Amino acid sequence: MITVIAFDGDDTLWHNESIFSLTQERFRSLMRQYQSEHLDDRLFATETRNLRLFGYGVKGFILSMIETAIEVSDGQVRAADIQNIIDAGKAMLDHPVEPLEGVRETVEALRSCYRLMVITKGDLFDQESKLARSGLADLFWRVEIVSEKDERTYRRILSDGGIKPDEFMMVGNSIRSDILPVVALGAQAVHVPYRLTWAHERADLNGAPPERVRTLDSLAGLPALLERME
Amino acid sequence: MITVIAFDGDDTLWHNESIFSLTQERFRSLMRQYQSEHLDDRLFATETRNLRLFGYGVKGFILSMIETAIEVSDGQVRAADIQNIIDAGKAMLDHPVEPLEGVRETVEALRSCYRLMVITKGDLFDQESKLARSGLADLFWRVEIVSEKDERTYRRILSDGGIKPDEFMMVGNSIRSDILPVVALGAQAVHVPYRLTWAHERADLNGAPPERVRTLDSLAGLPALLERME
Repeated sequence: MITVIAFDGDDTLWHNESIFSLTQERFRSLMRQYQSEHLDDRLFATETRNLRLFGYGVKGFILSMIETAIEVSDGQVRAADIQNIIDAGKAMLDHPVEPLEGVRETVEALRSCYRLMVITKGDLFDQESKLARSGLADLFWRVEIVSEKDERTYRRILSDGGIKPDEFMMVGNSIRSDILPVVALGAQAVHVPYRLTWAHERADLNGAPPERVRTLDSLAGLPALLERME
Repeated sequence: MITVIAFDGDDTLWHNESIFSLTQERFRSLMRQYQSEHLDDRLFATETRNLRLFGYGVKGFILSMIETAIEVSDGQVRAADIQNIIDAGKAMLDHPVEPLEGVRETVEALRSCYRLMVITKGDLFDQESKLARSGLADLFWRVEIVSEKDERTYRRILSDGGIKPDEFMMVGNSIRSDILPVVALGAQAVHVPYRLTWAHERADLNGAPPERVRTLDSLAGLPALLERME
């Protein structure tokens, strides 16, 4: 019997990866004037290397783009282009936050029957700002912004909220962060894929117990799914 | 009757501003080869301007140093020096976290009689990492990492924890973030100045009700102060 439903933020409640992807396109076109082979792969390598120090989020992404630009251009990148990279990153931080289709209606429909949470990872400041800009903040019982979504984090959140795993459902687009650690704790998970997935978040559902994982094309299908489950 | 004591992290539990200050010295010496007049003032102006988008923390500080370098050098700063700035910032993120003198003993002495918290602001990922590196994490009942320490934030923390203002005491080095908003809610505050204060955090105690604010030279004086108060 589910009583608490938690939603991931980025690419579940609102668009995010599409904005990273647009910025990365801007980065590619900016770097075209320099020698910049395998730019995407080298950016991903820099991001992965920096994750230990920077964590997730836009500020770390900007710094990784700058480092990659210096590295691939063999130190030739001009200061003005580094400023362009910073400006592109700032535009991400200021970008309108657009809820995915059907999100508001679904959240509004469910909040009278369930305690609803947001569990999202990334920069604290940026995530708070996105939630506020999304216009959805007031609809949730609790908001947890965390640095990593692993079993330990979910266990802490359930324990802080006095929530039993068998009454908890997590809904999100990332198999790695929203599904696998949640079902490992004995809770339910609903996978709603987004059209883009950052390479770091890619994983597959092999090994996840099928009775605890559902897949939906859109969050709008969640109320009907919950009815079927009861 | 105090039952919950919360400590600020940076410059209250562990050294922080001194590390920013050393990095800023490295930045000054790096920029000496360029035209770089009023470097400190211009860095502070950039930080203040960027606060709205970046929030507090090291990653935003690195980005502000880079922007300042580009600006003061009139676009002449070389990519290699921008990489030097990033490396100086990364060193901050990896710096050993050294508790201030007497902190561990004080916290250990108080934890059997009070519920102890950390309330600290900044990058989530960096603050979690600092708390872990400080070796103090296990001594606290709760840890709150927040994006801004204002009345609203403290009100939310007290309410989440079921804590009444008259049983709550905040201990910290920043009058602006640790003292004024706390006494405004009717709780107690103890100011333990650090030898350096970031310009943004400067404020004075004028107007704070003196019966709710104490000042200590060192955190080590806290157990004796609490005894006197009872």
